[in-house]
Amino acid sequence: MITLASDFGTPYPAAMKGVILQRSDARLVDIAHDFPRQDVRAAAFWLRETLPEFPPATHLVVVDPGVGTERAALAIEAGDHHLIAPDNGVAVPAARALTDAGTELAVYDLACDEDAVSNTFHGRDVFAPAAAEIHEAGSVADVARATPTAEWVDLTFPEPNLGSDGATGEVLVVDDFGNTVSNIPGRLVSDRDSVIVNGLQAPVRRSYAAVGDGERLVTVGSHDYVEFAVNRGRGDEAFDLAAGDTVELR
Amino acid sequence: MITLASDFGTPYPAAMKGVILQRSDARLVDIAHDFPRQDVRAAAFWLRETLPEFPPATHLVVVDPGVGTERAALAIEAGDHHLIAPDNGVAVPAARALTDAGTELAVYDLACDEDAVSNTFHGRDVFAPAAAEIHEAGSVADVARATPTAEWVDLTFPEPNLGSDGATGEVLVVDDFGNTVSNIPGRLVSDRDSVIVNGLQAPVRRSYAAVGDGERLVTVGSHDYVEFAVNRGRGDEAFDLAAGDTVELR
Amino acid sequence: MITLASDFGTPYPAAMKGVILQRSDARLVDIAHDFPRQDVRAAAFWLRETLPEFPPATHLVVVDPGVGTERAALAIEAGDHHLIAPDNGVAVPAARALTDAGTELAVYDLACDEDAVSNTFHGRDVFAPAAAEIHEAGSVADVARATPTAEWVDLTFPEPNLGSDGATGEVLVVDDFGNTVSNIPGRLVSDRDSVIVNGLQAPVRRSYAAVGDGERLVTVGSHDYVEFAVNRGRGDEAFDLAAGDTVELR
Repeated sequence: MITLASDFGTPYPAAMKGVILQRSDARLVDIAHDFPRQDVRAAAFWLRETLPEFPPATHLVVVDPGVGTERAALAIEAGDHHLIAPDNGVAVPAARALTDAGTELAVYDLACDEDAVSNTFHGRDVFAPAAAEIHEAGSVADVARATPTAEWVDLTFPEPNLGSDGATGEVLVVDDFGNTVSNIPGRLVSDRDSVIVNGLQAPVRRSYAAVGDGERLVTVGSHDYVEFAVNRGRGDEAFDLAAGDTVELR
Repeated sequence: MITLASDFGTPYPAAMKGVILQRSDARLVDIAHDFPRQDVRAAAFWLRETLPEFPPATHLVVVDPGVGTERAALAIEAGDHHLIAPDNGVAVPAARALTDAGTELAVYDLACDEDAVSNTFHGRDVFAPAAAEIHEAGSVADVARATPTAEWVDLTFPEPNLGSDGATGEVLVVDDFGNTVSNIPGRLVSDRDSVIVNGLQAPVRRSYAAVGDGERLVTVGSHDYVEFAVNRGRGDEAFDLAAGDTVELR
Repeated sequence: MITLASDFGTPYPAAMKGVILQRSDARLVDIAHDFPRQDVRAAAFWLRETLPEFPPATHLVVVDPGVGTERAALAIEAGDHHLIAPDNGVAVPAARALTDAGTELAVYDLACDEDAVSNTFHGRDVFAPAAAEIHEAGSVADVARATPTAEWVDLTFPEPNLGSDGATGEVLVVDDFGNTVSNIPGRLVSDRDSVIVNGLQAPVRRSYAAVGDGERLVTVGSHDYVEFAVNRGRGDEAFDLAAGDTVELR
């Protein structure tokens, strides 16, 4: 199984699929191709939350603002999964989530023939062929052009500051519904009736429909983080929050 | 075969696919994941029109504004098809279309372990595992946590009033092109040259291109209902109609 | 393998998939269903660039502003590929790209039972069943309702004028990123440091990231044409260019 994730929209992902299907009859599953454009952090978050739901697979990830520059193409062995991605950190949080705690990531540099590839579509020319090759080989280490490397770009999400009377965190992402996901653990609010979010009081509820249409709520989202939402509306607008913003809970 | 339909956008549907693929190697087919947000009626219409095109399958449907409340999770046996959906009516018209006329719907309540699921993503935690389980079992009745129920939320579409000199109906949905689909049977206009729509005269034509670019027409759509359209334009805007609006044909 | 391409958005492509899956268990791969509405030329360009990446397949293409008129339904044998499309030229450039140079296209007219089809959704009623039938037969010539035809709508892209001190070409398409693709061969700029585009000087670079964020560049895109782009921005806006516009390079 090969999953595909990118910020390509259409129809570029289809070109990657054609390239893979020339080399493999793997099942293909799309993760998303509408990640926010060239937003490595947002893609990294969604991949960390989504890829662990899958059985062992090869995951092709192309969110690549540095395409055509010297940045390397990487393959990572992570448990029974393989990730292929540009060296900008986009696949690192997912790879950690798929790797046993305390185990170092096994990262490989994928050599590529510079003259055979375009400068602007490495998804088609570099990453898709590598994904097919690694899927067919069953491991990264068995692919000739993969060499172990200790030099790669890390990406981590900030930790919240948890105090006795609240917490200060950060908005990690806003989803398509407008639900605003922070990095504050859900357990901090799950037994409370309300909290103060950046000075604004809001009820804590277990479901969106527990408040009236258009009303704000704070809830524990499916990622086990504190989320800011509106029943049948957009939490990002109601709480005036965007990715990267600071959130103070009291 | 398992089909998937939701209003989730991306990347949440991919999490549902991962959950299914952990439990089954069923073929997966997307119906749509961009149904109008939390619009149970629109999704119910499209599912009724689309699912009967498929060979026997398990259909996973998650348009669920009541997620996390007491609303039940249902499975419906409908001919050779199975539908898994929240108990808000969203799958009922499709289930009826897949069931022999005059046969009662066979509806089951799916018990779920409240403590093992998030409150905001039952698509991943409740419906996707149930779809995989029912697909593998081959029937809803053979799934241990499914118990027959006679209590479930119905959803029907309004019938038009057909008179001797016209008809009064309702807009059921507007499609992505702006084509505006009413509940008035196409046979009422198919032998006419023009009709008056809410006081506005418009030609009846068999194809969009039978009128000039940007011009209004009334046609019999692929659902066999009267539709209001514009050649290479949007019928909803030209006729000033939205879902739920009344339409008088004379 | 059957690929699907249309301007249908959702959920109409799912109806086509259901129709195919009633008749075939072919692997289905989406090319795109969000081609610019009823824009035959844009779809023709993307198909020409994308379909040759695939192994032998049956390609179902429905961008069809003339649906319901007298325009024919065609099937084209192109190398080991089959294309099914309305007779408006949309599949012709791809068919040529898949056919050996100098070989005539083998085009067939698909008879269809007019009474059995809707007037507005030939994707479901005509093209999808034909794609399944041709896929199962393994060739167009073996399908009873296909008859060779020499009458079909051609579609070609304009050739640029290449002079000693520059070139005059045309914008073929703008992609989802805003990258603006001309018909001028990349080799004309690949050894230059800068060019003048419609009077505006811009650097020629091998990658987007070779200029600062928000800065213009000219590059050789993945289609081997000269493209006008902005690093982390939209080239169409920065160069004030849209599909069909003339581009003068000096």
